[in-house]
Amino acid sequence: MLDIKEYMYDVGQRARQAGRTLAAAGTAAKDQALLAIADALQADEKVLLEANGIDMQRGQENGLDAALLDRLALDEGRISAMAEGLRQIAALPDPVGEIAQLVNRPSGIQVGKMRVPLGVVGIIYESRPNVTADAAGLCLKSGNATILRGGSEAIESNQAIARCIHAGLAQAGLPADAVQIVATTDRTAVTELVRLKGFVDIIIPRGGPGLIEAVADAALMPVLKHLHGVCHVYIDSEADIKKAIAVAFNAKTQRYGTCNTMETLLVARDIAAQVLPELAHRYAEKGVELRGCAETCQLLPACLLASEEDWSAEYLAPILAIRLVSNIDEAMEHIHRYGSDHTESIISENQQHCRRFLREVDASSVMINASTRFADGFEYGLGAEIGISTDKIHARGPVGLEGLTSQKYIVIGDGHIRN
Amino acid sequence: MLDIKEYMYDVGQRARQAGRTLAAAGTAAKDQALLAIADALQADEKVLLEANGIDMQRGQENGLDAALLDRLALDEGRISAMAEGLRQIAALPDPVGEIAQLVNRPSGIQVGKMRVPLGVVGIIYESRPNVTADAAGLCLKSGNATILRGGSEAIESNQAIARCIHAGLAQAGLPADAVQIVATTDRTAVTELVRLKGFVDIIIPRGGPGLIEAVADAALMPVLKHLHGVCHVYIDSEADIKKAIAVAFNAKTQRYGTCNTMETLLVARDIAAQVLPELAHRYAEKGVELRGCAETCQLLPACLLASEEDWSAEYLAPILAIRLVSNIDEAMEHIHRYGSDHTESIISENQQHCRRFLREVDASSVMINASTRFADGFEYGLGAEIGISTDKIHARGPVGLEGLTSQKYIVIGDGHIRN
Repeated sequence: MLDIKEYMYDVGQRARQAGRTLAAAGTAAKDQALLAIADALQADEKVLLEANGIDMQRGQENGLDAALLDRLALDEGRISAMAEGLRQIAALPDPVGEIAQLVNRPSGIQVGKMRVPLGVVGIIYESRPNVTADAAGLCLKSGNATILRGGSEAIESNQAIARCIHAGLAQAGLPADAVQIVATTDRTAVTELVRLKGFVDIIIPRGGPGLIEAVADAALMPVLKHLHGVCHVYIDSEADIKKAIAVAFNAKTQRYGTCNTMETLLVARDIAAQVLPELAHRYAEKGVELRGCAETCQLLPACLLASEEDWSAEYLAPILAIRLVSNIDEAMEHIHRYGSDHTESIISENQQHCRRFLREVDASSVMINASTRFADGFEYGLGAEIGISTDKIHARGPVGLEGLTSQKYIVIGDGHIRN
Repeated sequence: MLDIKEYMYDVGQRARQAGRTLAAAGTAAKDQALLAIADALQADEKVLLEANGIDMQRGQENGLDAALLDRLALDEGRISAMAEGLRQIAALPDPVGEIAQLVNRPSGIQVGKMRVPLGVVGIIYESRPNVTADAAGLCLKSGNATILRGGSEAIESNQAIARCIHAGLAQAGLPADAVQIVATTDRTAVTELVRLKGFVDIIIPRGGPGLIEAVADAALMPVLKHLHGVCHVYIDSEADIKKAIAVAFNAKTQRYGTCNTMETLLVARDIAAQVLPELAHRYAEKGVELRGCAETCQLLPACLLASEEDWSAEYLAPILAIRLVSNIDEAMEHIHRYGSDHTESIISENQQHCRRFLREVDASSVMINASTRFADGFEYGLGAEIGISTDKIHARGPVGLEGLTSQKYIVIGDGHIRN
């Protein structure tokens, strides 16, 4: 039997070693590997579908629900999308080695900051096999070695993707250990992974809040947490009615299951009668259930009375909580109390209110007159994202290549000494 | 008797509340407070010296050693230095609210990043009372509430400084809870502080490696670690002899007790005979003890033979380890194996070697032809530093005001929705 502790230690040690090679690798080699992996995924389509078929069959036998099975499934389109994603990452600028803020100091030295990889990134995720290619690609481009630990239900698919990744790495002359897929479905592998303090620099869990909290509690290294999104839109008393209705409708209904979807709508009492009936009408057409405070229910006959739990609920469904507030202070107080620091938006034409909201609301994304659905790596121009961080330390909001790097100080002298 | 858990919970809650006010406070109010605190410290000089006298007497009775007593002692000069430090912080630009990288996206929204305070910073430190004023000042300017937990040996001095801080805060109309000094010497207060996950955003321990490791292991929130410095200078085969000797001498002898002092000198074998005898002569004049590899000992008769432990020793004393290496690869391998990721310097005129060293050495500061002693917030132009981080996540190297902040995304639209 495999000794998991020993196995994971070996994985960690190899990752650290490969990480050093990758940190020094040139942009051309990394891009060559990314493109080669993309080609291999498409060339091996049949092999991938076969491997995925085994996972799907076992999943059905084990009674996985339809949503999980859907996330697990690969098809031609999804394989193409994985390949396309890797080609897009190859086309992004390489963040590694970028030197910023180089200044001359009075002592005569030049001081600046150079962007460097974090080292080794551990990714713990569930069912979706495309994460294997996405995460490996982002880490590779940013010069980090990766240890990937996918769900046991996707092990065959992940191993097949891993073979494509290793073929691509070999073609570019990069070490195979730059991307390692944990080859066991034993759950203790996760426990050991998050204890590899000297070998793994950061852990990124991707999955439900339960997984993320468990990983964060057990990990001995920093964890980039992507927790839930209880996002608000606040319609200010000085909002433009048309914009308010358009944004509040879009923020709820453009997609229900995403973390940047609005879950609670806050409306200034003064303007409520002008926006809520029309909005309620549009929500009703979409089948969105409304749960409001007592005043909201008076305005909207079809609205159910919200309970205290509704204010902190992440529905991820066609349900919306609505509350009237007196002013921006009450709105910000509600957001501070019930929000999850993810994405918050104000709809207002009042410059002072917009300025205060932008400055005072503490969230990874704060918006003016825009739909919360914009909080996304692609929309922000990051090119791709490995997650959205609701933490404050290191990276915040959508995390792209830059979030997978750090900066070291560089000093250039010509024999300079300190007096 | 004081219920420590309850007391610290209250401290945390107050800090979170005050942090919100401070995050929204204008630059003028924060600077006014800093200047008022500086004035109060100098006006209360007599009171501070009396309080410090009590600490000093108790310290002597408890048999504190001379070094600790020296760090504990306040005098007119040290009080002036504290006040001067605060005035310098007031003169620095306010990092909060700075908007960077604001770009127009194809969707029509503008996306950028706004610099924001971390929220609440917990500082755990030993004897030196000046940390109370320094740390409070840096946190105040960067818009963070602070919880300060100094050593029990300095409790009277710290409380006296706290009264000046509160007078200054009041004068500027800022909440007293923006800076709280833990009022108990009970050690469990530290344990409780590092568990205040929802109230404290980051912990900064300042003290010996024992304190830092203990805090990092117990803390439920991120910890900005400033661990030891095992710094190297590598004299390359293509070094300029004069620069090499000047830098290697300065990096060891300019101060012995600092974390950026060189502890091991690596010398390319080809150039060793040209630099080491002259350097050894200069070290001898300063009373520096040399411990070298066998080859070094052959070149330098007065050199002792180094043991394996010497390569990872942080002497903080007039002792230097010396090792000959074949080339830059062997030098980087040694640094990787024994270094502490603090500060590393190469002395070379070879552009390719310098470029490789800068890129491939993984440390918080990497230097070319400069003394490791430059690794310092003031030398780098940060204005002041709260510590030097040897971590990779969030802040790395000397940490000034910027390291006490984070960036949130901001999105500005005009009714924009996502399609």
